[in-house]
Amino acid sequence: MGRVLVVGLGPGDPALLTSQARAALEAADSVVGYEAYVAQVRAWRPEGDYHASPIGQERERARAAVALAAAGRTVALVSSGDAGVYGMASLALEELERWEGGSPPALEVVPGVTALLAAGALLGAPLGMDFAAVSLSDLLVPWPTIARRLEAAAAADFVLALYNPASRERRWQLGEACAILSRHRAADTPVGLVREAYRPGQTVAVVPLSALATQAVDMLTIAIVGNSQTRRVGDRLLTPRGYPPT
Amino acid sequence: MGRVLVVGLGPGDPALLTSQARAALEAADSVVGYEAYVAQVRAWRPEGDYHASPIGQERERARAAVALAAAGRTVALVSSGDAGVYGMASLALEELERWEGGSPPALEVVPGVTALLAAGALLGAPLGMDFAAVSLSDLLVPWPTIARRLEAAAAADFVLALYNPASRERRWQLGEACAILSRHRAADTPVGLVREAYRPGQTVAVVPLSALATQAVDMLTIAIVGNSQTRRVGDRLLTPRGYPPT
Repeated sequence: MGRVLVVGLGPGDPALLTSQARAALEAADSVVGYEAYVAQVRAWRPEGDYHASPIGQERERARAAVALAAAGRTVALVSSGDAGVYGMASLALEELERWEGGSPPALEVVPGVTALLAAGALLGAPLGMDFAAVSLSDLLVPWPTIARRLEAAAAADFVLALYNPASRERRWQLGEACAILSRHRAADTPVGLVREAYRPGQTVAVVPLSALATQAVDMLTIAIVGNSQTRRVGDRLLTPRGYPPT
Repeated sequence: MGRVLVVGLGPGDPALLTSQARAALEAADSVVGYEAYVAQVRAWRPEGDYHASPIGQERERARAAVALAAAGRTVALVSSGDAGVYGMASLALEELERWEGGSPPALEVVPGVTALLAAGALLGAPLGMDFAAVSLSDLLVPWPTIARRLEAAAAADFVLALYNPASRERRWQLGEACAILSRHRAADTPVGLVREAYRPGQTVAVVPLSALATQAVDMLTIAIVGNSQTRRVGDRLLTPRGYPPT
């Protein structure tokens, strides 16, 4: 019996892989994933058995990875960022849950640098205090659930990391999110926007919350909305932890 | 003029360092940090100029790092996990903010695997849906602010990562937190407890929320409290993202 290693690739630059993640990818007989992420691995590890599939086939990928492991292979099932955060780890575990007949393949999750940490580092220190991550994609979660989370996190003064802020077909959610956040945060609350973090074409910008709704954001962007204490330091963001001055 | 690299060390095992973090540490003339974290670096990189200081001297460390950089050195200011999450990045940026006379040293934040990702990986997939991170330490933040965040995150069905759940002198906050969470989550909501993640002595356990208040937790523990959908799969935790079964 083989095993499934669910590996977070980080932002995509191999310099942001951990040694453990690199070792897992090197040990894998097969690499299974969304085609763009499989290409990232193939760029530095050209040989191997690759199984790339298009967006939307997440469950099929998890199933294929478990089937390959059941056939004796060591399989890397890859996600961007951290595999546990809006990634493939939960789907892989669902496959083990429905496994029938004998013991299932072993499964190990290999952590990675999720998008909010990559964006946070490029912005300086926006995440210095309690924070919440919310995906604005309502493909799998009803919008009222997302809206309730935005409302709660904004009211309780969490720093907010917005994953999947918009896609080509999904635009109105960002405007709705901004309307909710604006009920609890000042119009000039700084928002960091990072696109293509640590990849060619990277952009980093800071805009006021009042301008967020009209920014050109997409699935490659993450937005970090400051809390009431977040301020600009040059072109960076600082959310102080509250140490007294000395 | 030198520069400050604020480097997240991840959980402590060098296998969980990114290549970028390792390169930053190798490039540094001086390493500044809390004594336990400096020791982690020294274990695999024995030569160098080390500045270790005890807990509580966070602002002094940031100041020392900036002063060494101003004197021309490349300085690694180290934090555990990710330097931006309850780490040294915000204090380093505060030092740049108060800088007087000429341009300050350059500052770069190098991301790392924060504790919630390390614990999440060891637990399987508890972070598959929107989550919030809250530190239970009220040394720098008034308890009512923390309590309000716990209440809001619990009511809006976020998965909750509790950093710094208790220390030797600080015990009652965990009980209070459990009382708040129990108003919004079922008593059998699974909670993952990870202590010393990826270090010798690592322990991983899953307990019901009703038993959390009496667990032996400390500053080396992180607790991940499931949302209403989180369930056990064997000894792991699964928070489904909501993909329809096929």
